[in-house]
Amino acid sequence: MADVEALLTGVVTRAHVLSGRAISEDYGHDEALTATPELPAFVVRPANTIEVAGVLRVAHEHRIPVTPRGSGTGLSGGAVPLAGGIVVSFERMDRILEVDTDNYVAVVQPGVTLEQLDAELAAKGLVYPVFPGEYSASLGGNVATNAGGMRAVKYGVTRHQVLGLEAVLAGGEVIRTGGRFVKASTGYDLTQLIIGSEGTLALVTEATLRLYPRPEHQATVLAPFPALHDVTRAVPAIVGSGVGPLILEYIDMLTMAAITAHVGLDLGVPADVKERALAYLVVMMENARAPRLDEDVETLGELLFDLGAMDVYVLPAPAATQLIDAREKAFWVAKANNADDIVDVVVPRSAIPEFMAKVAELGQTHQSLIAGCGHAGDGNVHLSVFQPDPQTREKVMRGLFEAGLGLGGAISGEHGIGLEKKKYFLELEDPVKVDLMRRIKVAFDPDGILNPGTIFD
Amino acid sequence: MADVEALLTGVVTRAHVLSGRAISEDYGHDEALTATPELPAFVVRPANTIEVAGVLRVAHEHRIPVTPRGSGTGLSGGAVPLAGGIVVSFERMDRILEVDTDNYVAVVQPGVTLEQLDAELAAKGLVYPVFPGEYSASLGGNVATNAGGMRAVKYGVTRHQVLGLEAVLAGGEVIRTGGRFVKASTGYDLTQLIIGSEGTLALVTEATLRLYPRPEHQATVLAPFPALHDVTRAVPAIVGSGVGPLILEYIDMLTMAAITAHVGLDLGVPADVKERALAYLVVMMENARAPRLDEDVETLGELLFDLGAMDVYVLPAPAATQLIDAREKAFWVAKANNADDIVDVVVPRSAIPEFMAKVAELGQTHQSLIAGCGHAGDGNVHLSVFQPDPQTREKVMRGLFEAGLGLGGAISGEHGIGLEKKKYFLELEDPVKVDLMRRIKVAFDPDGILNPGTIFD
Repeated sequence: MADVEALLTGVVTRAHVLSGRAISEDYGHDEALTATPELPAFVVRPANTIEVAGVLRVAHEHRIPVTPRGSGTGLSGGAVPLAGGIVVSFERMDRILEVDTDNYVAVVQPGVTLEQLDAELAAKGLVYPVFPGEYSASLGGNVATNAGGMRAVKYGVTRHQVLGLEAVLAGGEVIRTGGRFVKASTGYDLTQLIIGSEGTLALVTEATLRLYPRPEHQATVLAPFPALHDVTRAVPAIVGSGVGPLILEYIDMLTMAAITAHVGLDLGVPADVKERALAYLVVMMENARAPRLDEDVETLGELLFDLGAMDVYVLPAPAATQLIDAREKAFWVAKANNADDIVDVVVPRSAIPEFMAKVAELGQTHQSLIAGCGHAGDGNVHLSVFQPDPQTREKVMRGLFEAGLGLGGAISGEHGIGLEKKKYFLELEDPVKVDLMRRIKVAFDPDGILNPGTIFD
Repeated sequence: MADVEALLTGVVTRAHVLSGRAISEDYGHDEALTATPELPAFVVRPANTIEVAGVLRVAHEHRIPVTPRGSGTGLSGGAVPLAGGIVVSFERMDRILEVDTDNYVAVVQPGVTLEQLDAELAAKGLVYPVFPGEYSASLGGNVATNAGGMRAVKYGVTRHQVLGLEAVLAGGEVIRTGGRFVKASTGYDLTQLIIGSEGTLALVTEATLRLYPRPEHQATVLAPFPALHDVTRAVPAIVGSGVGPLILEYIDMLTMAAITAHVGLDLGVPADVKERALAYLVVMMENARAPRLDEDVETLGELLFDLGAMDVYVLPAPAATQLIDAREKAFWVAKANNADDIVDVVVPRSAIPEFMAKVAELGQTHQSLIAGCGHAGDGNVHLSVFQPDPQTREKVMRGLFEAGLGLGGAISGEHGIGLEKKKYFLELEDPVKVDLMRRIKVAFDPDGILNPGTIFD
């Protein structure tokens, strides 16, 4: 291994090749609740693509596992390294290389955070519209997991907004895919294949992101409902109404109480309504023109009453911001409340009521508390599972995934498979597809050095 | 081969297994201008997925090349079969299986045409927003080439609107990918990989398409400009203005004269303007609310004058429809005028002026007439090349592709590589990427029976 260290310091300056005690515990985990942390043999912090390619040539030559790392905010263990492996941390590749206002794209290095990008774009009246909730997340990590978030109902997810990549293959070759255009029909779409591959196909060293004009005006509407299924049944009507929601979230009573208490937020919902409300719908809208926004808010309000809302509140801007922030921190609240695991199953949005009925049934059968909220417009349900016994919890988790797949959904809407959901993925997914994915993996990485253990064994 | 015929009639009823003289010439080509037609040994017309799988098992067992065929409207020769091969024609798999208004998706068989789907959706106030121009095109063909069209500036292309697929692999295994949801992070995105793969990875037997509310109101604005570069320079400003164009096309003087003459259309442009206008911009907008559309048209009109338009015409609805139809028929006009070849290079939209300057230079250098129009909002330029000498034409074509790639673009924005552009693709594309694509091809189709000769040799 001393040999490897010498080779790595021949590529990346000595100060940025860490080994032994110099490796802090942070490099051993991400934010996944159940993945077991593991420290690598080396952490390298390359400054540029050439250094990343050099590191991969060393790793390739010596068959050493490589785990890419952005901000470490992943929720499925995809950034947990292997003992004896190399972590390639992109913390130094954190530059916004260009904001191109003719083509409406930003070109960023993988270590750029969402917060950093948004600050730069806000000043130019532009927006990169994928907001997965954790602003310290890196764009490289977003690409790896195909990150989603609340605004997907309007703008889709990372996959829909990344136009091109620079990436380093397992052998150290650098490729560029896509470009500053939305369409091409020139062979297989490598951009799309690498997005969501959780670092198992290539290391992304640059991304070209689609930008939009930043609408000036926003409004947030809160509607309490007497039952969860009233909320979930309202969703298709709102999506079809043409008001074009930016955010369309449901929050169950328990989660609403927890997240508002967590930040000390009072939404002004009268006590008698609060007592009878079992679920809430949060709808955020945006427009470049204030009168259009007002008109849409009015249309939405009428529609919500028709759909059975107990009341409709247009939140004052500060409360709206606080509520959206609080919702984004739902994971941290679950963690603080000692949730034992989390899932982010996606189902067709019309199937949410049926899925939630199965969730309730599973909770009862296995004596487990399951609370949540979700991107109702996308059918992406976030649940916290409280069940300390590992065997029972495994039954609950499997039951949730089976229920989602049975309704035509998928195991993860945005968190990824990582280490944590691999067992269920390999067990429940069509083996023909898993085999095909393994062959694709081999086509990219014949020696299996890129993030081994993630997605597949 | 008699043996194979017997096996095929064991899968698909005898009436739908054609061989020898029963195979009409139509099955030997698509609409590509320069690909050499070739008749297959068999044409099979399966009725369902099980029959498609059965045909592929026979083909796999006997190592027989298989070429999938939709409506045969492709422009790059991707549907030209191999002598001795099997054409799988999807003409009988032409049912719209479901229009799901809760999840806003349509589920279609590959032989459904755009015209057929649009008629069904219009009646429900919905739209599948990809309009590649040729309404007789099939959805299966659209998926194979990642079809685009004029509305891509607002809605993206096929890739952005297909949520899931059913597909048959080379060995006859049937897989389902994606689903009735816009997000998933569950292994590699097989949906996206199959889209645009021109029938070389799998045969698509069903597609789940995203739908939108169909805006009731549309307006079309025509603006003549004194020079082509004035038009192309205006494009980024219009995209950035927030008016959200549905269509944003440039049409050069020659092409405008040809397409309007072809259908006998008078747009009411005064003779003195027409004489001085070297290029036109066509902008179509849509809205669910008429007052908003009127307001946006006014904003756009002012902007166009600021950007140097000689005049701005809001076209009456019949003229607008005729102009858009005429633009969509530009390929047929080029063909009728004996164009020798066509290209659909895509470049970053800000690079269109520079690209068009290179086009003019190439035309002069090689004494070739090159006229065109294009999806200006997307940087996708459609050119007709008039140069009967094959050697000279090849220089022009290579020059056009090199110029596009040199500006950060791609060889084809929406037509695909097929047979016709393969030579240039293999010559000009990064060999590391081509090798990677070949390995992906092998991962799907180790014996190379799926549409061999398309994309790769």
